[in-house]
Amino acid sequence: MLAYHEQIPEVTLALVREAARRIAPIARRTPVMTSAGFDAEAGVRAAFKCENFQRGGAFKVRGASNLVFSIPKADLARGVIAFSSGNHAQGTALAARFVGTKATIVMPADAPRSKLEATRGMGAAVVTYNRATENREEIADRLLRESGATMVPPFDHPLIIAGQGTTALELLEETPDLDALIAPVGGGGLLSGCATAAKGVNPKIRVFGAEPELANDTYLSFRAGRIVTIPSQDTIADGLRSPHPGELTFSIVQRLVEDIILVSEDEIKAAMKYLLARLKILVEPSGAAAAAAVLFRKLPAGIGSVGVVISGGNVDLEALAEYL
Amino acid sequence: MLAYHEQIPEVTLALVREAARRIAPIARRTPVMTSAGFDAEAGVRAAFKCENFQRGGAFKVRGASNLVFSIPKADLARGVIAFSSGNHAQGTALAARFVGTKATIVMPADAPRSKLEATRGMGAAVVTYNRATENREEIADRLLRESGATMVPPFDHPLIIAGQGTTALELLEETPDLDALIAPVGGGGLLSGCATAAKGVNPKIRVFGAEPELANDTYLSFRAGRIVTIPSQDTIADGLRSPHPGELTFSIVQRLVEDIILVSEDEIKAAMKYLLARLKILVEPSGAAAAAAVLFRKLPAGIGSVGVVISGGNVDLEALAEYL
Repeated sequence: MLAYHEQIPEVTLALVREAARRIAPIARRTPVMTSAGFDAEAGVRAAFKCENFQRGGAFKVRGASNLVFSIPKADLARGVIAFSSGNHAQGTALAARFVGTKATIVMPADAPRSKLEATRGMGAAVVTYNRATENREEIADRLLRESGATMVPPFDHPLIIAGQGTTALELLEETPDLDALIAPVGGGGLLSGCATAAKGVNPKIRVFGAEPELANDTYLSFRAGRIVTIPSQDTIADGLRSPHPGELTFSIVQRLVEDIILVSEDEIKAAMKYLLARLKILVEPSGAAAAAAVLFRKLPAGIGSVGVVISGGNVDLEALAEYL
Repeated sequence: MLAYHEQIPEVTLALVREAARRIAPIARRTPVMTSAGFDAEAGVRAAFKCENFQRGGAFKVRGASNLVFSIPKADLARGVIAFSSGNHAQGTALAARFVGTKATIVMPADAPRSKLEATRGMGAAVVTYNRATENREEIADRLLRESGATMVPPFDHPLIIAGQGTTALELLEETPDLDALIAPVGGGGLLSGCATAAKGVNPKIRVFGAEPELANDTYLSFRAGRIVTIPSQDTIADGLRSPHPGELTFSIVQRLVEDIILVSEDEIKAAMKYLLARLKILVEPSGAAAAAAVLFRKLPAGIGSVGVVISGGNVDLEALAEYL
């Protein structure tokens, strides 16, 4: 998977800055929003980095394009492959289309039709498999063998992590004087990248992850001091359902993150509604996890200002109607 | 009503520029958003001026604060009064609170509880009246007589119009090369102000109004060449339900606007959903009227780029759930 790098690069601020230059042609510099009402409710000044306005509706295009744009030309011509029924699928599809190569996205056959269509709409070939009867890894092996394509992993890769870290880099360029930063954590690509960027720019900043109670794999791992795997869970934050953090992402989280804060399903829904009703922005459940932690005053004392990563806004309007 | 001005000022670009300076301390410079997906769907490049992100959730604070900040100190101390169950109530309340004077907002007793509470939450005193048994004008006369307060009219006043026009001024500063501009039209304050600003900056720009089919008073007036009054209507675009345009606003619309474009209830809802699902922004029905006209390709031929005023985002989540 790393064959196209002579060495595995270390995840540093320099790697994040390099990513920022590399992905500038495709990634949008998303706005930073504030809300006096939210601040009063939360008891802290919040600066929201709105990746729901990112191309593809989530931060995922940052990491995917940083990796895809780094693949040597000869390899790139054979295409890229990703496994995802979520935002990583669209991020990879957009990055591949941008450089004119083929993206093959492997999705469970029972993924929402809207996701299948959105991914095809971005020019990707979608291969579906039956979750009950087929093995994901076998499909991956076969596709990679047959095509010679390059795998774009969802989070546990230095270039993916560095790409996601550009989110925090932009936020701190616009709002330098933050006491803390909080981002949602699934596999940990966004959180570890943002922690690397933020601590690199300002070693004093305090970094937190926000994770659903129902998918608390990073929380448990963080407390155990080793990677813990949990059974699959049904949180509405479908982007944060990873059964365990990545090896690389977790080692960075252990080193740079102060704590993982848990949020309930109700708190996530309440934060989504608050962001919609008051900030007028649509945020998907996963994207609202960090805002939920802040809104429900779960940050430790002594924090006057916090950067909050709103990681995505891809939610079906039917699902939204149910939440409301 | 105009006693605090020695003369009624003419509505010019200079008056709009003066308004921009006056309201800078309170009004937010809202972002301009674009969407490649929308452009493909609409067949035109659209630049959305997002007044749903404005303080109070709509453009109304621009005009209200421009007027309130112009009231002589001695008069200002006796407070301000507005009639509104909508965004003008909140705009006036915010402007009054900003200068430390009392706002009295007169609303029908059957207005949504959320609107009453939001307005009180902004520090205003809310006076309710029974639409069936009480006369609005009598209440106004009594309140003005008793308090010596100044009335803040919703649209038909040079300072209100100039304040709303700052919306287009900002849009054209950010996106100067627009072929056209379109704004929703209710009483006509926003449209006439934006037309004044836009034509003042770029005399070649083509200006359009967007109005619900169910509240087509400006459309009918525009075609008749005189103010036409229509019976009260039930459009979901509750901010655009005025029975007739204002005298001053209509004279400006006649002079500067090329056409009034009608949109159906279904088109408004579809535009709301599109803006929510694709741009991830919450827009109220009134606020989506101009976007609906563009999305459904109702602009005349020969327009490559258009500025679209998204005028507000105040919609109850219960109502939103119904639209979805």
